[in-house]
Amino acid sequence: MSELFGFGKAILASQPFSVMLGTELEIFEPGTAVLTLVVRDELKQQHGFVHGGVVSYLADNALTYAGGSVLGDSVTSEYKINYLRPALGKKLIAKASVLSSGKNQAVCQCTVVAVGDDGGERTIAVAQGTINKVSPKI
Amino acid sequence: MSELFGFGKAILASQPFSVMLGTELEIFEPGTAVLTLVVRDELKQQHGFVHGGVVSYLADNALTYAGGSVLGDSVTSEYKINYLRPALGKKLIAKASVLSSGKNQAVCQCTVVAVGDDGGERTIAVAQGTINKVSPKI
Amino acid sequence: MSELFGFGKAILASQPFSVMLGTELEIFEPGTAVLTLVVRDELKQQHGFVHGGVVSYLADNALTYAGGSVLGDSVTSEYKINYLRPALGKKLIAKASVLSSGKNQAVCQCTVVAVGDDGGERTIAVAQGTINKVSPKI
Amino acid sequence: MSELFGFGKAILASQPFSVMLGTELEIFEPGTAVLTLVVRDELKQQHGFVHGGVVSYLADNALTYAGGSVLGDSVTSEYKINYLRPALGKKLIAKASVLSSGKNQAVCQCTVVAVGDDGGERTIAVAQGTINKVSPKI
Repeated sequence: MSELFGFGKAILASQPFSVMLGTELEIFEPGTAVLTLVVRDELKQQHGFVHGGVVSYLADNALTYAGGSVLGDSVTSEYKINYLRPALGKKLIAKASVLSSGKNQAVCQCTVVAVGDDGGERTIAVAQGTINKVSPKI
Repeated sequence: MSELFGFGKAILASQPFSVMLGTELEIFEPGTAVLTLVVRDELKQQHGFVHGGVVSYLADNALTYAGGSVLGDSVTSEYKINYLRPALGKKLIAKASVLSSGKNQAVCQCTVVAVGDDGGERTIAVAQGTINKVSPKI
Repeated sequence: MSELFGFGKAILASQPFSVMLGTELEIFEPGTAVLTLVVRDELKQQHGFVHGGVVSYLADNALTYAGGSVLGDSVTSEYKINYLRPALGKKLIAKASVLSSGKNQAVCQCTVVAVGDDGGERTIAVAQGTINKVSPKI
Repeated sequence: MSELFGFGKAILASQPFSVMLGTELEIFEPGTAVLTLVVRDELKQQHGFVHGGVVSYLADNALTYAGGSVLGDSVTSEYKINYLRPALGKKLIAKASVLSSGKNQAVCQCTVVAVGDDGGERTIAVAQGTINKVSPKI
């Protein structure tokens, strides 16, 4: 396990909300982050799909991780998400990558896929946002 | 309690994710929706602030409610959120309203405020998005 | 004419693209900017409406001005726009204001209205974005 | 020249604003659109870069074309753009593609690159948005 990956796991373990949801960090390398979440009933909305807020949370967190992989301690400044399909399946995977980064800011994109009961993957959302370093470099 | 408000409460009660988080519907009138969430440790991230994903969830849900107040059964198609300040306080309030609506789509804005321990309110996020009717009118 | 307003007019006059389009600065005060544009055929698309790109340009520029009114020399880092109605009329007015600002960044919102031939105003677009100071303060 | 490409060229030629700017359609296939724009002084802002509004216009138009390639006559409903670098160079290229589409709506992404005087390409902006069919299918 790389130092960066160990650091990322520790951050996730220190986020009570991520622990409650059951988020896992799968990949955390410079410029890339992949988070996964096993679907369970508590994460759903009234139609039986995963709640959009869960999909958003996962995309937001993956964007922050991607940005943080090149910036260090970071927060999401803003992002935008388009929901493409209802979130149905047994697992969600959010894959984020850095498009551009400077000293204090990175622009990242994220794709969220749902893994169906048959193992097939469908893209359910795409997001794009800005990540800011917590303590700006002077 | 108006019929619309009762309908809104029932929808929220049928969203397992909203129940787990403890979201409450405060106002639900044509063109307006207000959702609140009492802050507890499980909703936080590693710095002790409410997790951005929770703020996003609340904004997203308030946007859907606002759109749904004029469209009927609806989903968020897309939205964008800017985080303005760390989410600190004892309660979050997401106030959303409809800017424009047609038969099948509404554009809504949302402001999320945090109520501090002293009762003071600070705006912590603003969001803007598109809500789509689930079964488009022909 | 205030010093700020004079400064804003000079900046606009030094933007060849704004000069070509005919943009005017109506209001430029700390936290607020209003830009206007008289509609002419060259600004239209194939259906006779003002081209969305013109509406976007005006919103983008108004957001930058609003942010710049509190930050000084600034650029738009990102923004999002929802088009609400076709842009029909004789004049466009983009009104932007600052929601939140720090040393180096401001979050702003903008409303674009079209003034019809009868003088009536209709909101045709809303935008929200982040403005960054060009030379960050240390 | 394919029928679709010819149709796309005709639409562009019927947009007075695109004609004034000098936009060219390079590629127009189902799911993909590429627009280019030769940089000239009239398209710049006060620092000598291409005005952000021009970059936005090109991204917006490319998104509409991409969506229109699968939907038919379409308009941009909303989009979000992140500017990554100052727009410097002799030509801009906006490449847009469809991520997901239904009967009446498509979600598209766009990358805008600037071609430098040395022929090198740098990505200067990324955009993501929703395209709506003008006359919804029933």
